[in-house]
Amino acid sequence: MKQSDIFTKTSNVFPKDEVSTNARLLIKAGYIEKLMAGVYTYLYFGWRVIKKIENIIREEMDQIGGQEIFMPALQPKSLWDQTGRWSDLREIMYQFDDRSDHQIGLATTHEEVITDIIKKHIKSYKDLPKYIYQIQNKYRNEPRAKSGLIRGREFLMKDLYSFHADENDLDNYYEIVKKSYLNIFKRCGLKVFVIEASGGAFTKKFSHEFTVLSPAGEDRVILCSKCDFAQNQEISGEKEGDKCPKCSAPLKFDKGIEVGNIFKLGTRFSKEQKAFFTDLNGELKPIVMASYGIGLGRLMGTIVEIYHDEKGIIWPDEVAPFKYHLLVLGQSEKTLDLAKSVYDTCLKNKVEILYDDRKVHPGQKLNDSDLLGIPNRLVVSDKNDSKIELKKRSEKSVKLYPAREIIKIASS
Amino acid sequence: MKQSDIFTKTSNVFPKDEVSTNARLLIKAGYIEKLMAGVYTYLYFGWRVIKKIENIIREEMDQIGGQEIFMPALQPKSLWDQTGRWSDLREIMYQFDDRSDHQIGLATTHEEVITDIIKKHIKSYKDLPKYIYQIQNKYRNEPRAKSGLIRGREFLMKDLYSFHADENDLDNYYEIVKKSYLNIFKRCGLKVFVIEASGGAFTKKFSHEFTVLSPAGEDRVILCSKCDFAQNQEISGEKEGDKCPKCSAPLKFDKGIEVGNIFKLGTRFSKEQKAFFTDLNGELKPIVMASYGIGLGRLMGTIVEIYHDEKGIIWPDEVAPFKYHLLVLGQSEKTLDLAKSVYDTCLKNKVEILYDDRKVHPGQKLNDSDLLGIPNRLVVSDKNDSKIELKKRSEKSVKLYPAREIIKIASS
Repeated sequence: MKQSDIFTKTSNVFPKDEVSTNARLLIKAGYIEKLMAGVYTYLYFGWRVIKKIENIIREEMDQIGGQEIFMPALQPKSLWDQTGRWSDLREIMYQFDDRSDHQIGLATTHEEVITDIIKKHIKSYKDLPKYIYQIQNKYRNEPRAKSGLIRGREFLMKDLYSFHADENDLDNYYEIVKKSYLNIFKRCGLKVFVIEASGGAFTKKFSHEFTVLSPAGEDRVILCSKCDFAQNQEISGEKEGDKCPKCSAPLKFDKGIEVGNIFKLGTRFSKEQKAFFTDLNGELKPIVMASYGIGLGRLMGTIVEIYHDEKGIIWPDEVAPFKYHLLVLGQSEKTLDLAKSVYDTCLKNKVEILYDDRKVHPGQKLNDSDLLGIPNRLVVSDKNDSKIELKKRSEKSVKLYPAREIIKIASS
Repeated sequence: MKQSDIFTKTSNVFPKDEVSTNARLLIKAGYIEKLMAGVYTYLYFGWRVIKKIENIIREEMDQIGGQEIFMPALQPKSLWDQTGRWSDLREIMYQFDDRSDHQIGLATTHEEVITDIIKKHIKSYKDLPKYIYQIQNKYRNEPRAKSGLIRGREFLMKDLYSFHADENDLDNYYEIVKKSYLNIFKRCGLKVFVIEASGGAFTKKFSHEFTVLSPAGEDRVILCSKCDFAQNQEISGEKEGDKCPKCSAPLKFDKGIEVGNIFKLGTRFSKEQKAFFTDLNGELKPIVMASYGIGLGRLMGTIVEIYHDEKGIIWPDEVAPFKYHLLVLGQSEKTLDLAKSVYDTCLKNKVEILYDDRKVHPGQKLNDSDLLGIPNRLVVSDKNDSKIELKKRSEKSVKLYPAREIIKIASS
């Protein structure tokens, strides 16, 4: 893609009305645009990052047997009344009337809808287990949304739901999803901790949160320095100065961003919504369920919180909007021809390359390149004769290569 | 994909609360599920069809320079007040208060948001033209939604917006989009007519609708039997019995489904929202705009209205959820082995194949296959020795082939 064709521009200044690092950098670089508090448009570059994240998640969900569907955001009150959550969630769910004076809610989550669907299709133990997911917008009536993409009022979520004949089968799949989640976050460049958190009012078991340590985090987490003890402070009795209850080593208290969560629902929804199946002995039993969420925008915001410096963003390879950023500095015909030929050859070899062909000052090109944070920068310049500079955004060193070798590296 | 793994089931009966052919067939076959009037979940098969349509549209939009973004559904009243459409659209827009008592509307369309975005990025004639699109849910407070996917209250749309320095440049691009739309509908298997319709209150020019003739249509269209005269009756003075005003040939009056529309907005939004650019002479001018829509769900519903028979759906190749439907009839080891080997080889060759491995009556498999409407049916049966039946869903004739030849045909 030629940079001169892209409709967005970087800005010289940070947005005035944003306090979070992720929103400040992403808006300055032209990845996103704020429409109102907690509501953002993904612009060209930002949507490319989301698509990268979406593809990683889709690949991993398909890998563990997930079947993709797409559920509505508009949902009838009558369905939410079956579980009592119409009134339980009144504070955070947008609720309003339609023209026929039926009450409608905007989806904060989809347990009620998916349970309503599967009870029409799952009748016997032979139909179990099943794994169903979607990637879709959710809505939350947040009073204070100041964390950029990390806490939105409208936000993209992947939610997976699993359906089982018994707890044992659920427990097995729960561990499979845990591994799948660790893959996803690793591919996104993030180091996550699996944190025990509250299982909710209906179970004594823990749920698990996948948490990235960051000063931008809103959760207080307690980690052991030696063993795998890791809890959200909301469920933990531990206080600063206490020793690990498992191994007596010192505990660390940290702030974390929850980028995913997994949750054993058990039979809560299936009982209340009457989603039963016939077991091997012909008995009617409630389906055993779990749900598993990842926020795509939140993940993107978290990556920026972790991967940036004073100059801009530093995207991990797999989620970067482009792999290579080619800058042409100088106006000599020889330099322009060399840049053009590198660009054309990369396109032919299907290398994801952004070509800064704009007629602006070299300093602006270099600054914008650091701000955009594409992992590999190529510079073709009057000064370098016919050699090309390669610099990783995450490193300081610059190396010069002949054009042919650059093509080879980029296409590998 | 093995059919026994898919969580949806076909139904023996049509849904009781649906009158439209598309919803009746799509629900019976397990493509979609109704949540409430005009609001549907896309199930596994249905979402595959939508993804096929989405990919066709994305390819064609990228081909004509479109840059993809993703705008929010939640929109502030203040923005819609700039164009007066908050009150103009009050009847069909879901409008409600958030927790800070700000008024919010659910997007019926995105002209206001996109204009607000581009005015921050487009400053000079050098930044023009630009083409920006998204694929996203839109919302309409419909009082009567009885047409299945053809008229939803929540519906997937592709909307493209183009921005130009002058009318002439807009006119050129408008024709380019027209051709692109004809490509899209052709790839979806549809014969469309380009119909002149009202340009709205701000222009004397026509807009254009892309219309498929069908008894399920809600629009009355007037076509000439000889020339390209084609108008929506809402703008036409012609009555039954009148001759074509262009060539005096007889006119036909028909019902049509509008599957797309293109619309010259001119400077209406840019003037009202102050989206100006500096032209070659340094003068400040309003950006000239157009918008271009296609409803993805409506397109899917229309395809079903056109392509079905008394047994079920008949998907055109490019939008079918799978290309091949492999049925194994009989339980002999030889037959099962042959089916398995055809399936495995197809998977290896990346053929999109659905394998009906269920332990159900052959009659049910054949009925379900006709209902699902996958374009090519392969039958491996005890009766056929080691040959395999190939039948197109759209044709009556059946041919027998050796397995090796079937693999060759499917992989080509």
